[in-house]
Amino acid sequence: MGASNQSAGRRPVLALTVGEPAGIGPEIALRAAWQRRHEANCVLLGDAAYLAMLAHDIEPAIRVSALSSQAVRNAGLPYFGPDRLIAIDVPLAAHVVAGQLDHLNGRSVLATLDLALEGLKAGWFSAMVTAPLQKSTINDAGIAFTGHTEYLALHSGTEQVVMMLAGVPAQTLGAAAAPALRVALATTHLPLQQVAAALSVDGLLRTLTIIDHDLKTKFGLAAPRILVCGLNPHAGENGYLGREEIDVIAPALAAAQAAGIDARGPYPADTVFQPKYLQEADCVLAMYHDQGLPVLKYATFGRGVNITLGLPFIRTSVDHGTALDLAAQGLGRADSGSMLAAIDSALAMIAASPTL
Amino acid sequence: MGASNQSAGRRPVLALTVGEPAGIGPEIALRAAWQRRHEANCVLLGDAAYLAMLAHDIEPAIRVSALSSQAVRNAGLPYFGPDRLIAIDVPLAAHVVAGQLDHLNGRSVLATLDLALEGLKAGWFSAMVTAPLQKSTINDAGIAFTGHTEYLALHSGTEQVVMMLAGVPAQTLGAAAAPALRVALATTHLPLQQVAAALSVDGLLRTLTIIDHDLKTKFGLAAPRILVCGLNPHAGENGYLGREEIDVIAPALAAAQAAGIDARGPYPADTVFQPKYLQEADCVLAMYHDQGLPVLKYATFGRGVNITLGLPFIRTSVDHGTALDLAAQGLGRADSGSMLAAIDSALAMIAASPTL
Repeated sequence: MGASNQSAGRRPVLALTVGEPAGIGPEIALRAAWQRRHEANCVLLGDAAYLAMLAHDIEPAIRVSALSSQAVRNAGLPYFGPDRLIAIDVPLAAHVVAGQLDHLNGRSVLATLDLALEGLKAGWFSAMVTAPLQKSTINDAGIAFTGHTEYLALHSGTEQVVMMLAGVPAQTLGAAAAPALRVALATTHLPLQQVAAALSVDGLLRTLTIIDHDLKTKFGLAAPRILVCGLNPHAGENGYLGREEIDVIAPALAAAQAAGIDARGPYPADTVFQPKYLQEADCVLAMYHDQGLPVLKYATFGRGVNITLGLPFIRTSVDHGTALDLAAQGLGRADSGSMLAAIDSALAMIAASPTL
Repeated sequence: MGASNQSAGRRPVLALTVGEPAGIGPEIALRAAWQRRHEANCVLLGDAAYLAMLAHDIEPAIRVSALSSQAVRNAGLPYFGPDRLIAIDVPLAAHVVAGQLDHLNGRSVLATLDLALEGLKAGWFSAMVTAPLQKSTINDAGIAFTGHTEYLALHSGTEQVVMMLAGVPAQTLGAAAAPALRVALATTHLPLQQVAAALSVDGLLRTLTIIDHDLKTKFGLAAPRILVCGLNPHAGENGYLGREEIDVIAPALAAAQAAGIDARGPYPADTVFQPKYLQEADCVLAMYHDQGLPVLKYATFGRGVNITLGLPFIRTSVDHGTALDLAAQGLGRADSGSMLAAIDSALAMIAASPTL
């Protein structure tokens, strides 16, 4: 951490990128940052004038102080207390109309990610938390872009990342030491047809290595236990319903185990997500998006967090999209629960990873 | 219903096939049938001598009276009250060793299904409830067999059936009017690679028609609402992550809607299983096994029921396998919760379908 971070006292400094301006991102980022102002110094990255105006409309008590990125580059982040939020200005090119995408603002959205990366490297921030963006706005601005995760990996020189969703199951909310449900994905945003071919022994081994490493270094788990799903129904039933378990997943598990990773499986996906298995696990590795995320989102009830493993910094995110339809209906419709959970997860990870 | 059924009073008569004898099926069938003896007349189909002996080991109070199938064919089912269970004898060929499969018993397992089908046709039973069997035992006996569902369809002259899992989410258990979660599958036990090619407009339309029909006729829902998942992550994101939503699912939905079926979608699977969507639905149609069942089993917590839609009779089943490992450990390890739920679902369906 840089000196400027120290000067902000003991509260960690989080970079919050506000995402697609026409979506619910700016609103939920402001609400959540304000609600957590005593636990974290939240620095919003977005159009400072717009955010200040929006903050006032949300609640007049929310104070947003603007800084230019150049000022922060020159002098670092100033000290600030829980009486205000800071916004580092990343100006938009066009006025924001809630619910209406405007590709003119695509570059500005990307620029908030660049600034977060710069600030993480420079030690301004201890973690980044991202509000949802709209891929099409950025693509329509003429920039190839497939998503936050891929962009952050590329621009931090990370070869492979792992997408993990986490949350505390709603039915245990408030229970003492409620265990988090964590679901990592071996493949992410692929057409279902392409999933089987995308799996490889080496790829799964790298994925398991990243999960194991990050659960140790960013989650403070001394001996993380990973349960691994099969690809096919019933984990292939000994080859009767597909051979990927035998040809790909089992060899990857054997290699991971030989490397000291506590990974077990492959298990049927409709078995592994039952309490008696989950209580033996710190993370479930699903083979693809819709095998793992429906249950995670069902269980966490709007409080799920998207965490990117494998990056040289902590990055958490909401687990939902821009909700343009809600944004168009005006303020006060969006639920900032996932954003609050993303902030809380980032704080917990910072506390568990003193060396990062 | 046949005359013999009437003579048993108002309690419906259920056929319970006890499944693979070396698994937990016979035990959970006996326990559940005894526990529900005041609500239903449960007729166990299996080796009567073995079941009587097992019943005594489970609990000496359980009384099992044996009948031969020929006697029932000749004279119908006799009246019996809640002081006993009936077993119609389907003799095994080899002694049962818990936890150890013996292909010599494969034919007997199949014969219990045949007897259930015969009895449903003859009016002895109002529904059938199946304990888990082991496909390999039957295959090893030299009989091609791919599962309960397919067998019952073939032998009842049913062209297409739909597998549906249902249950009451555990977190709402005991709550007044807790809504059931119902998940039907467009494809069932296929290697993941083959799922996309197995979907067709006509097939989905038939599936939706069966779901709509059975929710009306067997569940008493006047206007069932069906939510339909996409095949790909995020339901394909307008073709960006796969085209099956556009080319196959949307046309099937349009055709179903034109036929008066309230089916909507395609929705992302990780969106649709959230409470605000589920409360608007009587059933979710998932495109494949691991898209729909992990969340169903997570939610229903060992109390899920497998229901076959499209058959000319009511058939429910447990949602788990034979658990040979548990059976090998002796009596008292297996949870009969899913079997109880399967009985309860069959009773609810009988009550909701007076004309069947």
